[in-house]
Amino acid sequence: MGSKSGKTSQAGRTDPSVLAAGIRAGERAALARGITLVESSRTDHQDAAQDLLAKVLDLSGGAVRIGLSGAPGVGKSTFIEAFGLFLISQGLKVAVLAVDPSSARTGGSILGDKTRMEFLARHPAAFIRPSPSGGTLGGVARRTREAMLLTEAAGYDVVLIETVGVGQSETAVADMVDMFLLLLSPGGGDELQGIKRGIMELADLVVVNKADGDLKPAARRAAAEYGAALHLMRPKSQNWSPKVALASALKGEGLEDIWTLIQDFRAKMQASGELDGQRAEQAKTWMWTELREGLLSQLQTHAEASQLVGELEKEVAKGGVTPTTAANRLLALLFPERAS
Amino acid sequence: MGSKSGKTSQAGRTDPSVLAAGIRAGERAALARGITLVESSRTDHQDAAQDLLAKVLDLSGGAVRIGLSGAPGVGKSTFIEAFGLFLISQGLKVAVLAVDPSSARTGGSILGDKTRMEFLARHPAAFIRPSPSGGTLGGVARRTREAMLLTEAAGYDVVLIETVGVGQSETAVADMVDMFLLLLSPGGGDELQGIKRGIMELADLVVVNKADGDLKPAARRAAAEYGAALHLMRPKSQNWSPKVALASALKGEGLEDIWTLIQDFRAKMQASGELDGQRAEQAKTWMWTELREGLLSQLQTHAEASQLVGELEKEVAKGGVTPTTAANRLLALLFPERAS
Repeated sequence: MGSKSGKTSQAGRTDPSVLAAGIRAGERAALARGITLVESSRTDHQDAAQDLLAKVLDLSGGAVRIGLSGAPGVGKSTFIEAFGLFLISQGLKVAVLAVDPSSARTGGSILGDKTRMEFLARHPAAFIRPSPSGGTLGGVARRTREAMLLTEAAGYDVVLIETVGVGQSETAVADMVDMFLLLLSPGGGDELQGIKRGIMELADLVVVNKADGDLKPAARRAAAEYGAALHLMRPKSQNWSPKVALASALKGEGLEDIWTLIQDFRAKMQASGELDGQRAEQAKTWMWTELREGLLSQLQTHAEASQLVGELEKEVAKGGVTPTTAANRLLALLFPERAS
Repeated sequence: MGSKSGKTSQAGRTDPSVLAAGIRAGERAALARGITLVESSRTDHQDAAQDLLAKVLDLSGGAVRIGLSGAPGVGKSTFIEAFGLFLISQGLKVAVLAVDPSSARTGGSILGDKTRMEFLARHPAAFIRPSPSGGTLGGVARRTREAMLLTEAAGYDVVLIETVGVGQSETAVADMVDMFLLLLSPGGGDELQGIKRGIMELADLVVVNKADGDLKPAARRAAAEYGAALHLMRPKSQNWSPKVALASALKGEGLEDIWTLIQDFRAKMQASGELDGQRAEQAKTWMWTELREGLLSQLQTHAEASQLVGELEKEVAKGGVTPTTAANRLLALLFPERAS
């Protein structure tokens, strides 16, 4: 999308070269526009977005990428704000993104994250962006990953990616970050029962929030229970066993210890080469995910195939046709020259 | 593949109508030939196999489908043989299949399962088949599922599908059975550490084997530990919480209780409609897996694309090109008329 006379402001919003220059210079406005471009579903915007990413890709990869999950009520926003402000006090620039496929299609979540994290949102060293609007989890995840690459190119040192616990969003976020934090309240065993299957296994660090005042003893007991549960699971990495930390976001306690643990994790993962290896695998997995999404959209846009998919799914579910036969019929439609 | 004069025995081995008739009549030879047809990678055999499945699909679905995983040394073969003979003593016909992508390409595993489970293998009411030979896990899993459908059409009441703990084979087996059994030894906490991530979560029933003689106290303690670990996880179903049972395959103890638990599970899952729902979801997931496998093979057979896949994967892993751009280039090759 080149600049056109009389439309420089429009071109300024979508011209990859202009945006790339702004992002490389660390300009917030350019970063915000770049992310808007990435989120757009218009084909011309998508092309421009890929152009933009290609232009700044060499500058990406430099942030500490942290995923954060926690049930409603556990104090996630309070934690993100407190932790974000702590990181800023250490001289770092902090970006906060989110993956939430249930976000209403209004161009952003209704209660913008900015109202939840007022102080952080206003800080010049922080950049907060709500989740891209709905659609498939794959689509939202891709947009968030690409937004993350842009924030890194703009010079942010830490990227926090929040999930709101909808469906498989935790796995999607774990697949794009270096370290996954799980925020829990001091509920102990009962709390664990309520956690979605597989979430515990994603955690590199469990943070027990609200560990203050009357809840402190309960928080310690919960921390011990969570530690025992983590111990029963086989660690993801030879270089790190998942840990439990206590915190009070409200009182700003425990944040320094958490950051120390994160840096310790990073150092071990860097030294062993595992961090680079993990990022390489994540990128390759992302490519295959995009390939699958591309196949799905072909099925949806191919007139005959999209009709057939629904019918075949029903037949397959009823046991009226084998899944292999159903798949073969669809593949034959998409690839007519294919030997069936 | 119709019958040809002078080649009736060949046609008898591959003619879907002939095989279907034999399988519907419960003939072992027809079943074995049908499974061989399903396992063949020849295109004409694949077509005939899908034909055969279509002809007997209405008779499938009638067995209790049980997956079984256990580390080497836990006594899996001894357990399968003992449990299989127990089921036969209850008047049931038992089929034993396996998913093992590491099976050497010799038309069957080198040490055929038959030597491991001698008595069961010789029994007329049992049908044992080694894992299909190597290739992708997806390919092996598909062949085993189709073999399972054929064994059901041939009248077998229980189908045990064994996994040998290689890679993701447990998940593949859990996706094709009603109930997943995990066989453990009396090792307790240490044993749990050694279990591959995610396996515990698949289990509907954990069986602590070798619960006899000196090991009985250890087995009880281990059962308590495994029970505690299971309790910390959120159950897969509202209708069933995973349980732990003690057994000694060698002494034939605990087998009746295990069968009672399996029937209890089945009754609850049937009554709630969850069994049918689970099978419908499994069939649909299988269809999408086949679609993905079809895409992969298109990428591999398309001359330009297969070359490009490897190169792009390396570039993506290094961070030299975004995964989205890489995927788009491959999709554009496969679907030239697609708007990129």
